[in-house]
Amino acid sequence: MALTETVTGKQYIEPKITIVGAGPGDPDLISIKGVKALKGANVILYDALVDERLLDYAPQESIKVYVGNPSGDENFSQDVVNQLMVDYALNFGHVVRLKGGDLFVFGRGYEELDYAASYSIETDIVPGISSAISVPGLQGIPVTHRGLSESLWVLSGTDSEGNLSPELGDAAQSRATVVVLLGYDRLSEIVALYQQAGKGRLPAAVIQNGSMANEKIAVGLVNTIEEVAEEKGIDNTGPVLLVFGSAVELHHDFQRIRQFFEWPEHAD
Amino acid sequence: MALTETVTGKQYIEPKITIVGAGPGDPDLISIKGVKALKGANVILYDALVDERLLDYAPQESIKVYVGNPSGDENFSQDVVNQLMVDYALNFGHVVRLKGGDLFVFGRGYEELDYAASYSIETDIVPGISSAISVPGLQGIPVTHRGLSESLWVLSGTDSEGNLSPELGDAAQSRATVVVLLGYDRLSEIVALYQQAGKGRLPAAVIQNGSMANEKIAVGLVNTIEEVAEEKGIDNTGPVLLVFGSAVELHHDFQRIRQFFEWPEHAD
Repeated sequence: MALTETVTGKQYIEPKITIVGAGPGDPDLISIKGVKALKGANVILYDALVDERLLDYAPQESIKVYVGNPSGDENFSQDVVNQLMVDYALNFGHVVRLKGGDLFVFGRGYEELDYAASYSIETDIVPGISSAISVPGLQGIPVTHRGLSESLWVLSGTDSEGNLSPELGDAAQSRATVVVLLGYDRLSEIVALYQQAGKGRLPAAVIQNGSMANEKIAVGLVNTIEEVAEEKGIDNTGPVLLVFGSAVELHHDFQRIRQFFEWPEHAD
Repeated sequence: MALTETVTGKQYIEPKITIVGAGPGDPDLISIKGVKALKGANVILYDALVDERLLDYAPQESIKVYVGNPSGDENFSQDVVNQLMVDYALNFGHVVRLKGGDLFVFGRGYEELDYAASYSIETDIVPGISSAISVPGLQGIPVTHRGLSESLWVLSGTDSEGNLSPELGDAAQSRATVVVLLGYDRLSEIVALYQQAGKGRLPAAVIQNGSMANEKIAVGLVNTIEEVAEEKGIDNTGPVLLVFGSAVELHHDFQRIRQFFEWPEHAD
């Protein structure tokens, strides 16, 4: 516990909150700085996207508190997590808020920082490796690649009101590699946007549980990706991301697709 | 050295290349997996964006080779680096190619992997923390934030031919938070694109040497950002990134700007 001796001999607790991004899933993808924060923690608040082996870095006597699934567990709304974070800091000292992902791409890291700051609690940030970039990269799909893709556009499947993100239509018309997080249940709507943009033959991929032992990938074209994802048994448990763009054709699974789809067309 | 005993008692070297992203600059932002790779390296090829303190993780007897500035050192072109990587792997075993950044957003990580694979050398990938997301985040600028920005578009200032990236015009018209890497010397052209899109009053920031001790930041509006960056002494040494979008208004420096610029206008 972070205790400080006062002049009267009484001890008080110095609250601190460090928000740590644990990365895409593989526990070895946390940063050294994140591990150092865990080693100095009195309390760890961790969510469903975090590998529990990371808790072993924390002192044995530290308090470990599970705070559910950040996108959809009504028992642990953002308000509840914010309040727990502040209460534990005021009562126990250094709270590490350990979150899956990078913190800032749909991670709501700023909201937690802002809440802590509203209590004048000292805060620190340890960013994580973003799944939007690393998960395709680990699969051999570079989100940018000279001559194939010169930019990356990352979006969520739904906006804050739960509607299909209105920017997805613009993204589908752009030349960017488009990565959609939290969008597998909107895949058919997103596919329709690409088809409307005349891009039914653009390469596309769906990756579930990226960087983890139970990872699954489906590689196809916009026109086929829903079917391939179903064939590969991809479902909505764990993080799923969608990738649209020419960079997907660098994936080794794409070579078969290229043969299967392009040869008949050129034979016409 | 990665030596293996053969049945005849002769030893041979097992070549391997691991490409590691070191993150935005702070050496503690490398991943545990990256450190493990360094600890098992026979050779490290590192570039100018890498903090040399990271070399301390490698065995003392390992060979450390500096390979220059990845974006513009004619002594170390990508071809030279590729060839060094393969030659060292064939002669000394496990080569760690330690690169600044995340590897895949203008990092050319795939090109190096592809080259190694063309020699049938075993490869591994350790992604890094992306400066495009973490550097603004560490400064209190979340690249996405509910109600302010629902997507992130990352671009380079110049395309592979050295021209202003043609997608920047579309990005300037989008609602995405736009992060431009390698673009400080094109700032006035990018500002002009935003002004043409009627966005002269959009918040903007320039960050040099993000996450490092010598970090500098300029926060302003599209119309003022060039002047503020100059006032803050930002130049093109070390990595510089540009951020355009409403999320920039969450930075604490923006509160003064809000007062200074908005009050006179509303008084008219």
